[in-house]
Order: sequence, then C-alpha cells, then structure tokens
Amino acid sequence: MASLPTLAVVGATGAVGTVLCDLLSSRRNVWGEIRLIASARSVGRTVRCRGEELTVGALTPEAFDGVDVAVFDVPDEVSAHWAPIAVDRGAVVVDNSGAFRMERDVPLVVPEINPDQVRHRPRGILANANCTTLTMIVAIAPLHREYGLRELVLASYQAVSGAGQAGVDALQRQLGKVAGDRVLGSRPGDVRQAVGDELGPFPAPLALNVVPWAGSLVDQGWSSEEMKIRNESRKILGLPDLKVSATCVRVPVVTGHSVAVHAVFGVEVDAESAREALRNAPGVILVDDPAAGEFPMPIDAVGTDPSWVGRIRRAVDDPRALDLFVTGDNLRKGAALNTAQIAELVVRDRSR
Amino acid sequence: MASLPTLAVVGATGAVGTVLCDLLSSRRNVWGEIRLIASARSVGRTVRCRGEELTVGALTPEAFDGVDVAVFDVPDEVSAHWAPIAVDRGAVVVDNSGAFRMERDVPLVVPEINPDQVRHRPRGILANANCTTLTMIVAIAPLHREYGLRELVLASYQAVSGAGQAGVDALQRQLGKVAGDRVLGSRPGDVRQAVGDELGPFPAPLALNVVPWAGSLVDQGWSSEEMKIRNESRKILGLPDLKVSATCVRVPVVTGHSVAVHAVFGVEVDAESAREALRNAPGVILVDDPAAGEFPMPIDAVGTDPSWVGRIRRAVDDPRALDLFVTGDNLRKGAALNTAQIAELVVRDRSR
Repeated sequence: MASLPTLAVVGATGAVGTVLCDLLSSRRNVWGEIRLIASARSVGRTVRCRGEELTVGALTPEAFDGVDVAVFDVPDEVSAHWAPIAVDRGAVVVDNSGAFRMERDVPLVVPEINPDQVRHRPRGILANANCTTLTMIVAIAPLHREYGLRELVLASYQAVSGAGQAGVDALQRQLGKVAGDRVLGSRPGDVRQAVGDELGPFPAPLALNVVPWAGSLVDQGWSSEEMKIRNESRKILGLPDLKVSATCVRVPVVTGHSVAVHAVFGVEVDAESAREALRNAPGVILVDDPAAGEFPMPIDAVGTDPSWVGRIRRAVDDPRALDLFVTGDNLRKGAALNTAQIAELVVRDRSR
Repeated sequence: MASLPTLAVVGATGAVGTVLCDLLSSRRNVWGEIRLIASARSVGRTVRCRGEELTVGALTPEAFDGVDVAVFDVPDEVSAHWAPIAVDRGAVVVDNSGAFRMERDVPLVVPEINPDQVRHRPRGILANANCTTLTMIVAIAPLHREYGLRELVLASYQAVSGAGQAGVDALQRQLGKVAGDRVLGSRPGDVRQAVGDELGPFPAPLALNVVPWAGSLVDQGWSSEEMKIRNESRKILGLPDLKVSATCVRVPVVTGHSVAVHAVFGVEVDAESAREALRNAPGVILVDDPAAGEFPMPIDAVGTDPSWVGRIRRAVDDPRALDLFVTGDNLRKGAALNTAQIAELVVRDRSR
C-alpha cells in the first residue's frame, strides 16, 4: 500500500469507542484517515482524535467505501446487521460485540496469544473477546504454555463500566445517595431504600453491594457472561476440552475487571517459575509482593494497557494448581486496546 | 440448674459484641444475669440489652466468678491470655478469636453441623470459626451430607466490618471523598489521591476498589484469612484431607461476606436436588431465581440470621461439581449469632 490505510470506528461516541479514540492518539500511528461513525443521535458531534477535531458521520453502507479496517464497538444486533455490509464494501471488520465470536469461521484474536489467526478470515470478520475473558486470558496463556492448562475455576469482580456509560452514571448517582453522615449497609433494606429506582442497567443496587449476576440467563442457571468466558477461553487457547467454571459478579468499581483464578495444569507447578513466566510475558505486569501491599487492584490498573497479575500461590492441596488474581482495564485491554491491536495486525500483515 | 445461668460477654462494646447484645434481646431468653465486660476505656459505659441498661465492667479475674458461660469477642492475644483465667474461675468459654480454633482439644462448633462437640471440651474452651468460614460452611455442610465433599475452590467478597468498626469508619470517610460530581475511578491514581491517608485498617483504598488481601502473610504467598478458611473447613466438616483453595478479597460493602464456591463431590450432582437439600437445611435460606433478580446479596442478608445461598449450577464440564454463591451477615452468623448459639447449646446440654 502506498498511502496509509483508512480506519473506521463504528460506535465512536460510546464508552469503548471513546477510549479507542484516546488510544489512537497515543499509539504509534499506522492510520491515514480515521472515520468516526455513530448512531443518528451522535451524528455531527466532534471528537478529538490524534490532535484533530473529527466530525462523527452516520452509519450508512457508503460510510465504509474506501475503508481498510472497520472497528465495531456497538451492541450485538448492530454488529450482526452492519458488519457484513462493511465487508461487502471492502473493509476488514474487527468486531467487539458478541455477534460473531463463537462462529467457526470467525477467529477470536488476542494479539499476545494467537496473532497468526488474523490471516484466516473467510468472512472478512475478526472478533474481539469479552472484556472479562480478555483481562484474564492474557495472564493465563503464558502459564498454559509453561504447564499445559486443564481446568479453570474463576470468580469475577466486574466494574460497572462493563455495562457502558449508563452503568457508570448509575453507580455515581447511587454513591451520592449512600455517602453521608449515616452509615448505610448495616441494616436490611437501607441501601435499597436509599438507592430507590436509580438501578440503571443493573438488577440491584451496586453501591455498598455485590451483585452475582452479569448478562442474561442462558441455561441451567448459567449467565451469558459466565458461558462467554468458558467458550471464548477454550477457543482462544485452542483447548476444546478445557474445563471452565466461572461465577460472574458485579462490584462497585468504575473501571477495572478483576478475576480470582484457580488454574489446574497437566504437570506440577512452582510459584516462582510461574512468576518468572509472567514477568516475561507480553501484555502482563507482575505485581506480587503482598507484604509490601502490592497486589493487582482496579484503582491502579485503570487507564493502563496490561493485565496486572499477582497473589500467585501454588495450591496447598494440589501441586498441579495455581491460585492467582488478575485485574485489567475492561475498556482498554478488555475492549478498545485489543481491537486496536487486531486492527494494527491486519494492516501490518497486509503491508508485508 | 435451679436458677437461670449467668452469661459474660467479653468485648461487649466492639463491633461483634454490640451485635451480640442486640441478638440477646431478640432470642429466646435462656440467661439469668448478663455481665458485660470490656477494656478499660469502655468501663462504666451503659449498653441496652434485653430492655435493661447494663453497665460495662472491667476485665478482671473476679469478673468471671459465678459465670456459667463467657463469650469472648476480643483480639487473639486478649483471648489467649484471659480465656484460661475465665475457665479457672468456673466458666465455659466460647471464643470468637483465632487463638484456640485449631488446637486439637478445642472443638470448633457450628451448631447446625456438629452440635454434639460442645460436650467434648477438655480445656473448657469452645471455638467459633472465622466469619468467612461460617458464612460459607453452613451452606456447604448439607451438600457434603448429600454428595460427599472432596474439594472447595473459593473466592470471597468480604465486607469492611470484618475488620471491625475501624473498617466501617474508614469506608464511610472514603465514600465521602469519592462521591460527588466528578466520576472517580476512571483514571489511574484518582481514587488513591482522593482517599489520601484515610486507609483505616486496610492496605489500600476500599472505595471504588477491591483489595485481594485480608489478614497477614502466612507462607508461600497465602494470607492468614485464606489458610483459616482451609483449616477450619476441614476441622468443622471432619475432613482432614479436604482440598481447599481460597482467595480472600475485601470489597466496599459495610456488612455481609459473600463467597463464590466451586465444590467438587464424590458422586454426580444435580442442581435441583442440591436446591432441595439446601431448602430443608437449618440456618440456610435459598434465593435462586436469577431471571426474577433473586440471588444472594449483602444488602439483603445484612441483619438476618441465615446464610443466603443461590446461583446453584452444576458445572458444565464436571458432573461432580456445583458452583454457587453464598452471602451471610459476618457479624451475626459469621460471629455473634454462632457464639450465642454455642453458648445456648452449652447450657441446654447442662440442664438435661
């Protein structure tokens, strides 16, 4: 390619799209034109990206003419309809929704783990994993390479921004109602009463609470979020028989998903070698000195690129198992950053 | 016994002691005199209990004269010193600290699980388990009886009141600093900056954060809280070979510890029979209808006696494993309630 490629960002004004525009300003510049696209109510707004004021355009088939890569940060049904249209117009689509992730002919790409899969895209679509899967899998893959992963037992601590800006706004309003002179949360019903109907997109108050639910009911009591983590982990690692049990829980954190991981391997593990494998792994930062107060936490991981991993322990009763804790920015590595990385891989691959 | 027995409450003005005084006012009355005892700075204060104004007395050997049962809700070192003195003066001690729990000749009693053990007390001391263990084990024991427990993988969501009133005060102050017009928690360091040095008893801010640490460093990266859950679960269930891996995490909740549980059994399980076993179990309330927004949460469990259990699922990839979520009031069943129940068992046993 003589000139620099054109990138379209669909859903540019949403929670993830906004972070993507920020990221594009700070990453090595591989793009010529950047075309911002959003739903009707955002058309005409201007967004700052790479130092330029860009005007948001409408989502039309013609918007994809001349686009090399189109990143979609929109709900499933919007992606399902519009991604094939973008492909017809000549773009490679990198989709951050759940619409295509589990389709056999759509690779689920994590650049640190399976970068080569960007080349196999018979439908012209590459998928980005769920934010909880992404946060965790970047830290698990190096351990899998070392020891051969057999089983994952996971419990999540998911931030409200995983439910979009509406989730952040709801927590913000709820905190305003529970913070004050009275100590709420010590009597039954007092938090529900204070929060009232300010639930936002959640089934229960998040302020001073944890809610063991994310997504929709799939089957046999499992939530869609829990099944995504299982199915996507298997696909990304290429382990169709991997045993996975996840419990997904929303917590009153603005941004930064955390996961408590119990990982069982095929051979005996050693905590110090595990630390060494993680210290050298791409996209991972090791924070593991509890005596010094160093462990991964959302308030430190927010706004950063890597998955923060720590609390690495060999299971006391199983020499083949490791327990650890991972935290990552669900809007960056969990979403916008991973799509930006995939988009860059596509054009790097093309320019060879 | 002709007259009603005398109860002493040591640490009557602390977080757990206060809840115990509340509980004694609402439970079937089995006590004659109730004697409140606390450290020097609380002596002379009056506390309302069973409708009476009781004056807090000093912790002296003589304070235990004529006492039938002495409940200790004080730090480990205070229990270690004073419990044997109370026994010497003729009291049976029910200790809520960690000082005696793992001693071979001190039973660790959960009345719903091993009530008979109150009779075997060669040292005159009965121990109460850690609050996280208690919350969870009441829901696990009925499943163990049904299927034979082999392994537990646990991740906790622990409330700040588990660290005493100082923990509640710290979260309260922190919330005052992060609630407001600005959305904090979306940029690195903004929560740390707002919270400043108002950490209270925690190694990091709890507001808008989760902290994967509780207790002190024991060995090989494990925290004291994590090892307590392992060792106490084995002792209470009488399963010295039980495999246990726990990750303990503090969350911005005032009261109500939650635990995500992955339990592996000796035989195949069935979610509906598991629900049935829990529906009929003492000290447990089943809350398991996610489609209707019903799952266990701290804001509902606080101030109530039972362990709330829900999100019961058979593991997709292991027919012998169940995943579930348990929440209980860490100051009630997790502490004061269980000690009150043990004390009542002691006097009931004696009056036979």
